[in-house]
Amino acid sequence: MRRYSLAEIQEMERFFRTTFMNSISGFKSVNLCGTISPDGKTNLAIFNSIVHIGANPPYLGMIFRPHTVERDTLENILSTGFYTLNHLTEPIYPQAHQTSARYSKEESEFEATGLTPIYSDQHTAPYVAESPVRIGLQYEEHHQIMNGTLLVIGAVKEVFLPEEVVSKDGYVDLAAAGSLTIAGLDAYHKTELLGRMAYAKPDLPPRKIS
Amino acid sequence: MRRYSLAEIQEMERFFRTTFMNSISGFKSVNLCGTISPDGKTNLAIFNSIVHIGANPPYLGMIFRPHTVERDTLENILSTGFYTLNHLTEPIYPQAHQTSARYSKEESEFEATGLTPIYSDQHTAPYVAESPVRIGLQYEEHHQIMNGTLLVIGAVKEVFLPEEVVSKDGYVDLAAAGSLTIAGLDAYHKTELLGRMAYAKPDLPPRKIS
Repeated sequence: MRRYSLAEIQEMERFFRTTFMNSISGFKSVNLCGTISPDGKTNLAIFNSIVHIGANPPYLGMIFRPHTVERDTLENILSTGFYTLNHLTEPIYPQAHQTSARYSKEESEFEATGLTPIYSDQHTAPYVAESPVRIGLQYEEHHQIMNGTLLVIGAVKEVFLPEEVVSKDGYVDLAAAGSLTIAGLDAYHKTELLGRMAYAKPDLPPRKIS
Repeated sequence: MRRYSLAEIQEMERFFRTTFMNSISGFKSVNLCGTISPDGKTNLAIFNSIVHIGANPPYLGMIFRPHTVERDTLENILSTGFYTLNHLTEPIYPQAHQTSARYSKEESEFEATGLTPIYSDQHTAPYVAESPVRIGLQYEEHHQIMNGTLLVIGAVKEVFLPEEVVSKDGYVDLAAAGSLTIAGLDAYHKTELLGRMAYAKPDLPPRKIS
């Protein structure tokens, strides 16, 4: 094992440090966030900082970093109130990654990458047709964290997914759905289930759900 | 595709809904959080809500839900100022999951699960010896989100990992390190790299880092 001190981390070359620090927290959820501006321009941006906030009522959070291309997304969320989160799969992850390019405000990432917008009758934000798990959210609140970083919280309004990946106990089999995970800023991974563990109790040893 | 409306989600049986909602955001980082109380009792708890906040200075965030066993962890962080995050691997994930059992305050999850505490000379919080990636953090601030849910932010003070999994550009190969990811509350997955994508530019097609 090698120890990296804070002093060493601070002395790392800037892009090396960004990549290193974005890797060490572990695998992350990766989603495409679909929004639309008040004048009807669609936008699609990739996020790897989605967190579960609550199940009842259902809330998800996402982190917005300062000075990034994600700011069009934030403006659209604040002005229209709605956004979507869409999982990545193996066939679409290169296009999904491409949404992080700095396209001009006039160009939609849907058109630029060839991903397909589809809509529900509940709100105006576009979903990604190629995505197997799609979540529609309404903006709820945001919190200023530090240095311009924001935590945006949304209330889940609807979820689309293949019914056959939902287990009897509510577990959604993301590996079966084809959902990917990301390490760092650019490393896309598929997954394989090792096991589901039963609810842990102090007087019972760890055991798998059979 | 099946649509689940908010009304349907709200009408789900309580445990079904909790499992469903914890699944849909995608794969998550999973870490063991090691702390110690002011009177020297070690604690170990599993968290699947770590988010990257910043690289320079390096910050990580984690979500604390209300009314959970994680509260010993929070008390220890607030009273001592330090905590550790430790990745899970295939050999230890059953023990790691077992730390979510409601042990009494007198019982350390290290002793109860057989995981091994080790220490650095920088602070008092225990690391997990069996973990391939270990991060030492100092409490920085916390934010009240909603309904008793908190976002706790820590400053990274040191990182331990096998040097051979760090690429020339700072990318940490988590699959090579053996780090796992979690879906929902209890489904542990190993991963396989599909590809790393180069920095995206509007005038270039998506391309892998070779």
